[in-house]
Amino acid sequence: MRDELSGPARVAEPDEAISYEELALAARNHALPLEALRYDVTPVGMHYLLTHFDIPDIDPDSYVLTIGGRVRRPLRLDLAALRARERVTHRVTMECAGNGRALLQPRPVSQPWLTGAVGTAEWTGTPLAPLLREAGPATDAVDVVFTGADHGVERGVAQDYQRGLPVTEALREEMLLAYEMNGAALPPQHGAPVRLVAPGWYGMAHVKWLREITVLDEEFDGFQNTVAYRLRQDPDEPGEPVTRIEPRALVRPPGYPDFMSRARVVPPGRCVLDGRAWSGHAPVSRVEVTTDGGASWVEATLDAGDGPPWAWRRWWYEWHAPPGRHTLSARATDATGRTQPLAQPWNRGGFANNLVQRVDVFVTDTPAAPPASI
Amino acid sequence: MRDELSGPARVAEPDEAISYEELALAARNHALPLEALRYDVTPVGMHYLLTHFDIPDIDPDSYVLTIGGRVRRPLRLDLAALRARERVTHRVTMECAGNGRALLQPRPVSQPWLTGAVGTAEWTGTPLAPLLREAGPATDAVDVVFTGADHGVERGVAQDYQRGLPVTEALREEMLLAYEMNGAALPPQHGAPVRLVAPGWYGMAHVKWLREITVLDEEFDGFQNTVAYRLRQDPDEPGEPVTRIEPRALVRPPGYPDFMSRARVVPPGRCVLDGRAWSGHAPVSRVEVTTDGGASWVEATLDAGDGPPWAWRRWWYEWHAPPGRHTLSARATDATGRTQPLAQPWNRGGFANNLVQRVDVFVTDTPAAPPASI
Repeated sequence: MRDELSGPARVAEPDEAISYEELALAARNHALPLEALRYDVTPVGMHYLLTHFDIPDIDPDSYVLTIGGRVRRPLRLDLAALRARERVTHRVTMECAGNGRALLQPRPVSQPWLTGAVGTAEWTGTPLAPLLREAGPATDAVDVVFTGADHGVERGVAQDYQRGLPVTEALREEMLLAYEMNGAALPPQHGAPVRLVAPGWYGMAHVKWLREITVLDEEFDGFQNTVAYRLRQDPDEPGEPVTRIEPRALVRPPGYPDFMSRARVVPPGRCVLDGRAWSGHAPVSRVEVTTDGGASWVEATLDAGDGPPWAWRRWWYEWHAPPGRHTLSARATDATGRTQPLAQPWNRGGFANNLVQRVDVFVTDTPAAPPASI
Repeated sequence: MRDELSGPARVAEPDEAISYEELALAARNHALPLEALRYDVTPVGMHYLLTHFDIPDIDPDSYVLTIGGRVRRPLRLDLAALRARERVTHRVTMECAGNGRALLQPRPVSQPWLTGAVGTAEWTGTPLAPLLREAGPATDAVDVVFTGADHGVERGVAQDYQRGLPVTEALREEMLLAYEMNGAALPPQHGAPVRLVAPGWYGMAHVKWLREITVLDEEFDGFQNTVAYRLRQDPDEPGEPVTRIEPRALVRPPGYPDFMSRARVVPPGRCVLDGRAWSGHAPVSRVEVTTDGGASWVEATLDAGDGPPWAWRRWWYEWHAPPGRHTLSARATDATGRTQPLAQPWNRGGFANNLVQRVDVFVTDTPAAPPASI
């Protein structure tokens, strides 16, 4: 029966259109509407969301988080105990590792993201490292596994969602057990009552509905670490793990849209292009913009670099828009020198693909009409 | 230039797959994940959302709503003035008129909803009728037009989003100018700072980012009333307007899902099926369930009928699930006798289609495994 409902990973044929299965995932797992790039902090409901299985229903009053495995002192903490500990807030940009997947050629068949699988939130909770130190990982600890309450089947494997992190990463001071988002209780779809927030890492590491933390003396061999989130050209190679967020800039589409095509109409003349840029490896140090489809690039202005280290930065560029059709893009570079490719970085899972976005605009011959009135 | 970016309405060819334009709309406009049918009130971020153009950015401090046209005393109200008036809360189920469109054969090409374009929220605001009476509609008033701040192009027509309601409907006591949703400030994507809530009507009537209310002495001939939201078999006929919500029941999919296919795995034995049912014409009076793909129907239990009149009702049915593959559906009937068809009610726009949902489940031979642990 499992074979019937749960097939192997696959790549679409060169001309294969979007399937109903992909559409069903797109309807559930929503993207940031790109005009929401205007917000420093993404309002709840516009932040991207990816749920592998169903959103679980967890009673916060009976919720318990366990910390165990290769530790000297296993811990059990309810929500009150977590809330009684040190409380910190981090502004963090989170991006799905599969962002941009549906634009790849050929297309890996999975959640069909275009470019909006990103968002920035203020996550409040208690730091993980002091709790882990209190539990006391054994000196031979290798990985820390985070188990969520979400359960399902993926490629024939029944599982609770689980991800492992190297113990050195789990002990970084910015790792957070979050119970609030944007100043309110964590919404169910973002992992209530408690989720992991792993600044700098792609979304798959930020385990939602967290119920168990387990220290291992070996590398974790669970599905989401060894099968799903790997960079592979060939289905049989072990591949490299997906880890931190590659640099990316997005343009906030200027002007106004056509309902169906989402093509943009822009009045001619002065047009401040802006957007956001981020990287999980290091701060973004440079954003370049093109308004001619990549023939020439110009430097954008970046906001002051004194903001939260794990959040996106705003960039802007004053464009004098000539009538006609134009293609806009922005390209981020971070302090490690990593930048965005102009040719697609393809792998079978469609992961960590930071190909530059392309925004087509139609600049009109005449200034904008005033808003319609009766 | 407009022709290039904004085509006419069309129906997909019989075997035409989902396009990238439809996918882009699906990524922006999110559906209720069906497990959220568990909530009486849908949390923000899981309520369905449809935005024709972009989500506008409106400063609540300078916001002004005008009431004018064929009235004796035009009004201008800021947010403080609206908040100082009578304050009421209505729990309202809202559904997009295009819900289920992508399942129609042939498929109207537009926002490609499957079955989740619905949600129930608690909307708080001030009733519209006393304000309209204060402005004093002329005795020859026919329609009341609601203009939003969202601007774009649709089928070649540049426009602010506008919808007219007959004045008799606009004066119904349940019509609300809402400034809160689920006890918090209205989120930007749901129409901040103020939207119309028109209980019983499909979503297109609940104008978001409301900036102008205009009384007319004739029928409103705007795009969204006379071109877009019409029931037509032929593109040239004027068609009938889309108005109130047809009855519908949804099944909360039982068991757990496969990530990619969303097929459901259910342990054998006792399984309480449940879901929600609603109608914009009258209270739901009956829900029937089938577990054999429509060969036989049984009566479900409905919750007490003393809940909010404009909100969905929970229903449930205790199923003894035999191993094997089954197709589940539920069918709602309301107090007017309206019910859900078993064959698709097709029209060119894919509107007001309340064909029964089908949920495929695989019942296993053995009881559920306990949650995975390390």
